[in-house]
Amino acid sequence: MSGKPIVSLIEYEQASDVVRAVYDDIMATRKVDWVNSFWKVLAHDPALLRRTWETLREVMAPGALDPLTKEMIYIAVSATNGCEYCTYSHTASARAKGLSEAQLMELLAVVGMANETNRLANALRPPVDMQFEPKD
Amino acid sequence: MSGKPIVSLIEYEQASDVVRAVYDDIMATRKVDWVNSFWKVLAHDPALLRRTWETLREVMAPGALDPLTKEMIYIAVSATNGCEYCTYSHTASARAKGLSEAQLMELLAVVGMANETNRLANALRPPVDMQFEPKD
Amino acid sequence: MSGKPIVSLIEYEQASDVVRAVYDDIMATRKVDWVNSFWKVLAHDPALLRRTWETLREVMAPGALDPLTKEMIYIAVSATNGCEYCTYSHTASARAKGLSEAQLMELLAVVGMANETNRLANALRPPVDMQFEPKD
Amino acid sequence: MSGKPIVSLIEYEQASDVVRAVYDDIMATRKVDWVNSFWKVLAHDPALLRRTWETLREVMAPGALDPLTKEMIYIAVSATNGCEYCTYSHTASARAKGLSEAQLMELLAVVGMANETNRLANALRPPVDMQFEPKD
Amino acid sequence: MSGKPIVSLIEYEQASDVVRAVYDDIMATRKVDWVNSFWKVLAHDPALLRRTWETLREVMAPGALDPLTKEMIYIAVSATNGCEYCTYSHTASARAKGLSEAQLMELLAVVGMANETNRLANALRPPVDMQFEPKD
Amino acid sequence: MSGKPIVSLIEYEQASDVVRAVYDDIMATRKVDWVNSFWKVLAHDPALLRRTWETLREVMAPGALDPLTKEMIYIAVSATNGCEYCTYSHTASARAKGLSEAQLMELLAVVGMANETNRLANALRPPVDMQFEPKD
Repeated sequence: MSGKPIVSLIEYEQASDVVRAVYDDIMATRKVDWVNSFWKVLAHDPALLRRTWETLREVMAPGALDPLTKEMIYIAVSATNGCEYCTYSHTASARAKGLSEAQLMELLAVVGMANETNRLANALRPPVDMQFEPKD
Repeated sequence: MSGKPIVSLIEYEQASDVVRAVYDDIMATRKVDWVNSFWKVLAHDPALLRRTWETLREVMAPGALDPLTKEMIYIAVSATNGCEYCTYSHTASARAKGLSEAQLMELLAVVGMANETNRLANALRPPVDMQFEPKD
Repeated sequence: MSGKPIVSLIEYEQASDVVRAVYDDIMATRKVDWVNSFWKVLAHDPALLRRTWETLREVMAPGALDPLTKEMIYIAVSATNGCEYCTYSHTASARAKGLSEAQLMELLAVVGMANETNRLANALRPPVDMQFEPKD
Repeated sequence: MSGKPIVSLIEYEQASDVVRAVYDDIMATRKVDWVNSFWKVLAHDPALLRRTWETLREVMAPGALDPLTKEMIYIAVSATNGCEYCTYSHTASARAKGLSEAQLMELLAVVGMANETNRLANALRPPVDMQFEPKD
Repeated sequence: MSGKPIVSLIEYEQASDVVRAVYDDIMATRKVDWVNSFWKVLAHDPALLRRTWETLREVMAPGALDPLTKEMIYIAVSATNGCEYCTYSHTASARAKGLSEAQLMELLAVVGMANETNRLANALRPPVDMQFEPKD
Repeated sequence: MSGKPIVSLIEYEQASDVVRAVYDDIMATRKVDWVNSFWKVLAHDPALLRRTWETLREVMAPGALDPLTKEMIYIAVSATNGCEYCTYSHTASARAKGLSEAQLMELLAVVGMANETNRLANALRPPVDMQFEPKD
C-alpha cells in the first residue's frame, strides 16, 4: 500500500482562477474554510472538477429527500463498493448532519443484509413475482 | 438467459411444518396472503430460510431509522450490485410504504453519483483528510 | 426476470417541454431520429435527465481521447459491473464508431485479465513497489 | 490495515529455476532490471506464475489495440473494482507508455460516468432498444 | 433485456481448424458430444478461445483441491458478481460432479454471510488484528 | 488512508453484559482468549453483534460442507469484493484449520479465473444452454 495520491494535490495557492472559483463555492456552500483532498486531485481537470462539484451540490441538496438520508445512501453505496476515502468522508458528513451512532449501525445492518440477499437471489434466480411487476 | 430458478419453488402445499411456520409468519407480518418466490427457493434449506427471514424482519423493523428509509437503502445496494430480483421486489416494497416517484428518482441520482465518485477516489487515491478522521 | 421497466417510458409525445428539449438535443447530437429507452426512463426526473445527458455529451466528446477509445472504456466498465443494458447500448455505439470485431475481442481479453489479476492482488496483498509510486 | 503480504515475496535469489525463468522473461520483455512484487507473491505457485505472465504478455502486446489503450482499459477495470495495487502499477505502466495527465483525467471521467449510468440502468431497467440488438 | 448474444455463435461446422481443435478437446476432456455457447462466442478470437480453455482445463483439474470444491468456488464468485450465465453453467457442472442440494444451500449461506460481513468491515474499518498478520 | 476505525473498539472491560456474553461465546467456541476487532466495532449495536455472531457460528459449523471448505469460500468472496480485513482474517482462519499454501494458491487461481470468465460472459452474453437448465 502507498500513501501517495496518483496525482498531486492542487492547493488553493497554486490553483487557476477556474479551480479557485470551485474551491470558493465548496467552502461557501459548506460554510467551512478548507477543501477536502478529493477536490484537490480532481482539480487536475478543471472541467471535471466543476461538473462533479455542481452535480454533487445539486444532487445532495434538500429535495424530495433530506440531506441526511442522502448521506446515508452515499455510505451504503460506498460500503458496498469498498471505497475507503468515501466511507471516511461521507460518514463524517453524515455525522455533521446529525447521524447518530444508532442510526449508523442500523444503516449498516441493512447494507449487510441487502448484500447478503442480493447474492442469494443471484445464485438461486427466483422469478420476479407478478405482484412485484411495476404497474402500467 | 433462462427463466428457470436454480432450485424449484417450494409451495405452501408441499412445505414441511418448519417451512410453513416461516411462510405463515411472513404473511402475518406483512399482512398479505402470498409468499414471494425468494423465500420459496430458500426453503430448500429450512434453517437458512428461518434465519434469513428472522434477521430481515428484525433489521427492517422501525428503529433508529424508519422502514421507508431502510427500503431506500436496500434499493441503493441492489442497484449498485445489479441484482434484478431485488430491484423489483424492494422497489415494490418501498412503493407500498409510500415511496413517491420523485423520491425514487432522487434516490437513484444519489446512487449514481456515489458510484461515480467512488471510482474517482479509487483511481486517484486522495489521502483521507484529518478533518474526516473519526474522533476518539 | 421481468421485461418491464421500473418506471414507464416517457415518449416524445407525452413529454414536457424541458424533456423534449433534451430529446431534441440527443437526436441532433447523434444525428438519429430516435431516443433510446435509457433517457425515456430518466425523463421522470427532468433535472436528472438534463444533467446526465449534458455530462455524457461533454465526457464522450473528442478531447485528449478519441470517442471510440471512450466507448471501449465504457464497455470495459459495463462488463465488469455486469450491466446488461449498458453492454448492448455501448457495444452498439462503439460499432457505429468503427469498432471491429477483432478490437472488441481484444478489449474483452484485457477486461477479463484485469478482473483476474485484480483479485489475485486483492487476495495476496503485494506491497506497492517504490518504482510505481507517483513522482512528486 | 496491514502492510504485510499474505504470502512472502519470493526474491530472485531464493527462486527455483522455473520461477527464475519467468522473472528473466519479465525483465527482458519489459527491458527493466527488477520484478514487481505481484509476481513475487504469485511465485508460490510456479504454474500460476508462468500461466499468468504468459497470458499477460500475450494480451497486452500490440494487436488490434495499441498497448497504451490496453493499459487505459486496465486502469478502468481496476478503478471500478477498487484494486489499490493494480491502480498504482497500471497507472505507472500507462505513464511509462506515454499517458498524459489530460488523458488520465479524461479516462477517469468516462469511468466515473459509466459507473453512474450502469446503476441508473440497473435500477430503472429500461428495455434494450431494438436498434441496439446485435445484427445476425 | 435481449436474448441475442453480442457476437454470433460459431458452430462446429463453420469453425476454422484451430477452433475445431479446441472444441474437440473440450468434448474429449468432458466426455460430452456438445460445446456450450460460452466457447462459441469466444471463438471469434481463436487465440483467446484456446488460451482461456487451456487455462480453465489446467485450473479446474484435480490438484491440491478436488474438482467439486473448485466448482463451488466458481459458484461463490459468480453469485457475488451476479453473472447469470456462469451461475447456470457452474451449478450444472457442480451437480454433475456430485454437488447435493444440501451442499449447494450451505455454500450459498456462506456466500451470503461473506458478502454481508465484507460490507460491515468495509464500513466500520476495524484494524487488522496482529494475530491475523501473516507469519514471516 | 486512515488507520482509525469508524467507531471505537469496545473492549471487554467497557462492554455491557450482553456484549460480554457474545465475547465469551466467541472465545469459548473458538477456544482462544481474545476477540478480534471486527466484533469490537459491531458491539456498538449489541443486537447486530449477537445476530451476526450467532449466524456466523451456525453457518460456519460443520454440516454438508466442512469448515475448511467454508473458509475457502469466504476467502473467494472477500478477494472478489476486495475486503482487506476479511482477506487477512479469513486467510488466517483457514490456515488455522489446515489450509496449505498449495491449496491457497490453487483456490486463488480458481477465483481469478472465475472473475475473468464472469466478465467475458457478461460482455458477450452467450445464451444459457438448454443442457444447463435446472431439471424440474
